[in-house]
Amino acid sequence: MEDIVLHPIGIINTPYKSPENIPIQGRFDDSVEGCCVLHDKYSGGLLHLDEFSHAILIFYFHKSKKEEIESRPYLEPEEHGIFAIRSPNRPNKIGFSIVKINKIIENKLFFSQVDIFDGTPLLDIKPFVKHFDNRENVKSGWLDKHFKNGNIPKEIILKKR
Amino acid sequence: MEDIVLHPIGIINTPYKSPENIPIQGRFDDSVEGCCVLHDKYSGGLLHLDEFSHAILIFYFHKSKKEEIESRPYLEPEEHGIFAIRSPNRPNKIGFSIVKINKIIENKLFFSQVDIFDGTPLLDIKPFVKHFDNRENVKSGWLDKHFKNGNIPKEIILKKR
Repeated sequence: MEDIVLHPIGIINTPYKSPENIPIQGRFDDSVEGCCVLHDKYSGGLLHLDEFSHAILIFYFHKSKKEEIESRPYLEPEEHGIFAIRSPNRPNKIGFSIVKINKIIENKLFFSQVDIFDGTPLLDIKPFVKHFDNRENVKSGWLDKHFKNGNIPKEIILKKR
Repeated sequence: MEDIVLHPIGIINTPYKSPENIPIQGRFDDSVEGCCVLHDKYSGGLLHLDEFSHAILIFYFHKSKKEEIESRPYLEPEEHGIFAIRSPNRPNKIGFSIVKINKIIENKLFFSQVDIFDGTPLLDIKPFVKHFDNRENVKSGWLDKHFKNGNIPKEIILKKR
């Protein structure tokens, strides 16, 4: 199959300069703000996105330098297929985060629920649509045991190890 | 910013050979089955994904030949920014669907809730994790009026026009 060439539409700025203290998923820390800075020519693409509460950011894991087929996730020592975990060390290093929209000013989208490195190349933004994207009766495989009875595991913030 | 080069991990086979009769979102039609066929070297990446009920497919809108900054979505004649709608005619033609996992056999992932063209290049698969990906208190902008009181709009299946 042919190569697919993409061009970043902008850059994501966040306070996370290293893997320390970054939450494994943004929804577990509401206090931090990030900002998508789009190239000027794409500013118009943000029209009416401020009427949504959440957005889906699609980005490139630019810090990931290896490709794994099976790997251990942050939460446990078991190996799983790379398509059953959310590790950045994937065949195509595409990242996906649902974030909370705070405000949009010209070419800038300010958001919270951040789990993204500073300087990450931004590939796409989609509106989060509850009628499309929420699911009921979900089984979340190896992850469910870590979230039993609505608990949030302690090891949800990345630490150096 | 530099180009980002991706390589498909496989191909998505579905019964949809043309834009007619394809639902605008897969969750509105459970009756159709599609199949992700991965290149053999990625088969191991599916390990334990069968313990999840849903997966996120990231793919390339290979049929889209134009790039729009503002556009009209299928459901209404109003123009919105391309990042506030789900149209394939985006700067980076990345598609995103949440599908229901039916079964996994070797390098094949069979799924329902299909809204994808036959022959679509597959870029990534991620497990859908309810603890990460469902959101409460969501405002879905221009879309909410089409789904008032839990209604599903009639124009949810693409017709030639």
